[in-house]
Amino acid sequence: MSDLVTNLKALLGEGAVQDGDDAVQAGLARGRLGRPLAVVRPGSTQEVAAVLRLCHDAAQPIVPWGGLTGLVEGARADGVVALSLQRMNRIEDIDAAGATMTVEAGCILQSVCEAADDKGLFFPLDLGARGSATIGGNISTNAGGNRVLRYGMMRDLVLGLEVVLADGTVLSSLNHLIKNNAGYDLKQVFIGAEGTLGVVTRAVLRLRPKPASQNMALLAVDTYAHLPRILRNLERGFGGTLSAFEVMWEDFYKLVTMPPAAGRPPVPHGHAYYVLIEALGGDEAEDAARFERVLADELEKGEIADAAVAKSKAECARLWGLRDDVLQVGQNAPVFTFDVSLGIVEMESYVADVRAALLKRWPAMTLMVFGHLGDGNLHLIPGVGDGSSQARHAVEEIVYDALRQRGGSVSAEHGIGLEKRAYLSYSRSAEEVALMHRLKKAFDPGNILNPGKIFAAA
Amino acid sequence: MSDLVTNLKALLGEGAVQDGDDAVQAGLARGRLGRPLAVVRPGSTQEVAAVLRLCHDAAQPIVPWGGLTGLVEGARADGVVALSLQRMNRIEDIDAAGATMTVEAGCILQSVCEAADDKGLFFPLDLGARGSATIGGNISTNAGGNRVLRYGMMRDLVLGLEVVLADGTVLSSLNHLIKNNAGYDLKQVFIGAEGTLGVVTRAVLRLRPKPASQNMALLAVDTYAHLPRILRNLERGFGGTLSAFEVMWEDFYKLVTMPPAAGRPPVPHGHAYYVLIEALGGDEAEDAARFERVLADELEKGEIADAAVAKSKAECARLWGLRDDVLQVGQNAPVFTFDVSLGIVEMESYVADVRAALLKRWPAMTLMVFGHLGDGNLHLIPGVGDGSSQARHAVEEIVYDALRQRGGSVSAEHGIGLEKRAYLSYSRSAEEVALMHRLKKAFDPGNILNPGKIFAAA
Repeated sequence: MSDLVTNLKALLGEGAVQDGDDAVQAGLARGRLGRPLAVVRPGSTQEVAAVLRLCHDAAQPIVPWGGLTGLVEGARADGVVALSLQRMNRIEDIDAAGATMTVEAGCILQSVCEAADDKGLFFPLDLGARGSATIGGNISTNAGGNRVLRYGMMRDLVLGLEVVLADGTVLSSLNHLIKNNAGYDLKQVFIGAEGTLGVVTRAVLRLRPKPASQNMALLAVDTYAHLPRILRNLERGFGGTLSAFEVMWEDFYKLVTMPPAAGRPPVPHGHAYYVLIEALGGDEAEDAARFERVLADELEKGEIADAAVAKSKAECARLWGLRDDVLQVGQNAPVFTFDVSLGIVEMESYVADVRAALLKRWPAMTLMVFGHLGDGNLHLIPGVGDGSSQARHAVEEIVYDALRQRGGSVSAEHGIGLEKRAYLSYSRSAEEVALMHRLKKAFDPGNILNPGKIFAAA
Repeated sequence: MSDLVTNLKALLGEGAVQDGDDAVQAGLARGRLGRPLAVVRPGSTQEVAAVLRLCHDAAQPIVPWGGLTGLVEGARADGVVALSLQRMNRIEDIDAAGATMTVEAGCILQSVCEAADDKGLFFPLDLGARGSATIGGNISTNAGGNRVLRYGMMRDLVLGLEVVLADGTVLSSLNHLIKNNAGYDLKQVFIGAEGTLGVVTRAVLRLRPKPASQNMALLAVDTYAHLPRILRNLERGFGGTLSAFEVMWEDFYKLVTMPPAAGRPPVPHGHAYYVLIEALGGDEAEDAARFERVLADELEKGEIADAAVAKSKAECARLWGLRDDVLQVGQNAPVFTFDVSLGIVEMESYVADVRAALLKRWPAMTLMVFGHLGDGNLHLIPGVGDGSSQARHAVEEIVYDALRQRGGSVSAEHGIGLEKRAYLSYSRSAEEVALMHRLKKAFDPGNILNPGKIFAAA
């Protein structure tokens, strides 16, 4: 046992530090995490700071762990210390008048949403991993998800942060104010930095009024060019209440509406695109009528081939259930997951080009496509019958090359981690990457915070 | 003429560089700007970069100038080079399908709003100085204004930036995507940095659907404690369309509704608070009925003493005209302007404490108070009959001391500049200020970019 691990045990107690086979098991449990030297679970900000001071003095790299639901190997901790925020999962305060909530970083997203709901308020972040993803991870990856169109990404939902810096300094920036231009807004630097600039330990979240109404429909559309127009018309017609415009390409829609999936098709198969729309409003009775009227106006224009309106909360949940049933892609295993963003008008040709290039090489290939079209974000999940790293690399070249030509981003919401590091330059200029290095060096000169993630050391 | 000025003239042409008395006049024209060594007006990003390279090599401080409407001496350029973006005022592109606009930093805010409107879109930033403030200045100060409640501050309206760094490097980060998690989101560092980390030269702005309806009312409320409840109820009832909740304390309301002001009171004097509310929605006919119904429900509760609903576009404009008629405070000249934020529930006691402390020292003191209550932001404009710097300092101590006790911010939206530098520590911890210094040093090691603003060199 290394001196460092001995010291960590002395600091936190034996129960809060796993090393040897225990640490490896903790890593293996969630896959692709490597074999950590140790997994430490501090119970307070002071303990996180003490761990950081020890590691800093020993030049020991650490990798922050949240819910381990990330998809880009951002939490891989091979041979280094994994710092789990799991035990720091308290909701410390809900200020209903100010509409804020103060939480520890290890809080589960779903718990936060439920706690807000209990107070008649609403925390809008929503994504498939809601039951295990943590707020700290959501912050460090600037999580997106299902309602970005209306409420923004995690960055827009955070008012204040407490962060432990590389040397163990506690930066308490637990601002509760919507507007605060007193010098640099430092929290912005840590949001989306994937744990490479500091360890997020607490956050003040901004809550919203709880919507009084939820109205949803599933639309079938045959021509891609109609989609952006439908989006803009619904945005305008719903007057700020449109909260989702999720598009499923036909193959994905079939996958989640046929056995072995539990879902059944609310509108028949046979169309090119299926759009889940949702509006969250202020009046249960009136909003339903408005929803149907705006939709009827849109149907009149002849660009929507078919539509099914959800008539109850249960039907709304079933529609979201289809969109969320991403695990069905396992039917095509092995698969690779991509998370790109690009201009809405480019998406049709982009998907067509990627599909053609993949089919040319792998004629039996499957390609599932769906995404947050209102945000310019697509998920592509190709299965080429080969899960090797060589196959992955070949698929990446195809997916990202077509993206680079269109000025897109290799990561809309998942982050870069290790997985996309080689492609960062497809979406960021040399000057941008150089400045990222400069920022990293200023905040973590010893390169101990999640080293190698996003980019290799300069 | 210094060598540097000679070189600047050679670089940009004589017409683009004013020095000597001309530079002083350019500074004097807008007050409190000092006596610049020279005022340079580059016409392109390349020229800005060339100016920065020259100044960098000569260790010559520069101060970026936008529309010079700032209120905190952020553009003061005494004895140094003022770099005006005034000539870089082109709207380069409007992408209606993607809902983005690409502009040069010197574009006037109002021109941007009008150009969006012409395309059936909406750029939501709105503030009193709209006719002369520039987009670059709005970005560098993270401007707020009248509709933050609905659309956020300038930070939320910017997708991409082009910035020239201290050494003349052009950082082109002209992202058009709503979601882009490819590494650090560098633009966040420059937004609100008051020109101390780079010179913003171009921006990609996010546009919104143009609202189809605007409904407004002026409410009179006698008890402060009713205001937060009314705010939350209207937010909920309007279902995401509430775009302003502006509160005027009685003295301010009287000032803007009596001669010599042009405005007249839509509801009678004699109440403690007057609230301007606005909802921007998607349906002209239906939204008016909804607005009146939600308001009627709220009136039923007995917390609103009186209300006047605007019945036309002209009446809406007149209501905004009252709130915007801030120049009436000149009646109490000399006055000092404050821009603070704090928790909504703290505001009543805060204003009362400040008023009492000011009256104790200056019995004939006037205090105008109004602000964006929905954002936790108040403007206080005391007139104590003395415009000296001693009087200013004494007033500042009173205004900021009461704020510090309540965890508020000395700047909600105006920034720090030189004026509030001494009070930065009232709203930010020593660790935060130290990290700001570290960021500054990493981005501008020679301290040539707007030096001394926000904080003095370490």
